[in-house]
Amino acid sequence: MKAGGAVEGGEVTKVPRGNRVFAIIDLILRIVAISGTLASAVAMGTTDETLPFFTQFIRFRAQYDDIPTFRVFVIVNATVCGYLVLSLAISTFHIVKSRAAKTRTVLIFLDSIMLAAVSAGASAAAAIVYLAHNGNASANWSAICQQFQNFCERTSGSLIGSFGAALIFILLIFLSAIALCRL
Amino acid sequence: MKAGGAVEGGEVTKVPRGNRVFAIIDLILRIVAISGTLASAVAMGTTDETLPFFTQFIRFRAQYDDIPTFRVFVIVNATVCGYLVLSLAISTFHIVKSRAAKTRTVLIFLDSIMLAAVSAGASAAAAIVYLAHNGNASANWSAICQQFQNFCERTSGSLIGSFGAALIFILLIFLSAIALCRL
Repeated sequence: MKAGGAVEGGEVTKVPRGNRVFAIIDLILRIVAISGTLASAVAMGTTDETLPFFTQFIRFRAQYDDIPTFRVFVIVNATVCGYLVLSLAISTFHIVKSRAAKTRTVLIFLDSIMLAAVSAGASAAAAIVYLAHNGNASANWSAICQQFQNFCERTSGSLIGSFGAALIFILLIFLSAIALCRL
Repeated sequence: MKAGGAVEGGEVTKVPRGNRVFAIIDLILRIVAISGTLASAVAMGTTDETLPFFTQFIRFRAQYDDIPTFRVFVIVNATVCGYLVLSLAISTFHIVKSRAAKTRTVLIFLDSIMLAAVSAGASAAAAIVYLAHNGNASANWSAICQQFQNFCERTSGSLIGSFGAALIFILLIFLSAIALCRL
């Protein structure tokens, strides 16, 4: 059987055709995740609000890197975005070579690390954004979103791309696992 | 070839022996993760500190559920712990039936969701614990750990089990992927 078949190690083996489709979906999802993480990193990394009023001693200004968690968020998203760009090569390789099993296994491993990183970064930032919106009476932390509305909107919005990327990573891992299962 | 072989669909196929070892490691790792998430949930869920001094109007008391993120942390860890207990059944099934591919694929999918959940919960709580320790001058959030030392130690310590579980999930996903790759 040569049509829809590939020669590997001198042996003619059947190529699961669906795996090529999975590899194409994988590639598309990675591109979507790249834009998500990039948008998150840029949106958070450019957040800077200076209030139009000030006293003699204080200028009211909120920047993303005033809060260490937001700095971590930007670093994590930039790193994951970089990883995703590099992983496009392996993803493309899987479209050409549908039977590749080892690279898929490695990809599942790396994807799961990135899934942990991106969901950690996003939810840590979400915890701080929640605090900025609602404050915490018990700990005497006041909400700062009344003053820094624009800052809060930007930081809240930037979470979307990151959480979206986490969802996509779950799908990517599942797709790779299905492809492995079908081999 | 009957020794080390299994009959599946009327066909005699070779069983990858390493896969049984992987399944046993998988089971052990799940039991470790169960104790980690359980310890995290219990340690955080029982955190309650009342300071030995009080005024006429205020009693200084810090409980884990004063901070919504900590409440989410407990719920997430309890849920993941419950999932891990249930997943022991599939893990044991894999020891008996080393060739099972579909259940491994499902397990990778569920494990990746739980990985996202547990790392999200742990890092959100870590962001708040960091804030409790260091405060944030820009947002005018003061550190509360000088007053509530015991509270801070307990909440910080409870993160360990949860982060450990996240690492174990990455290993579990990798192990399942290797087992699938070898089939």
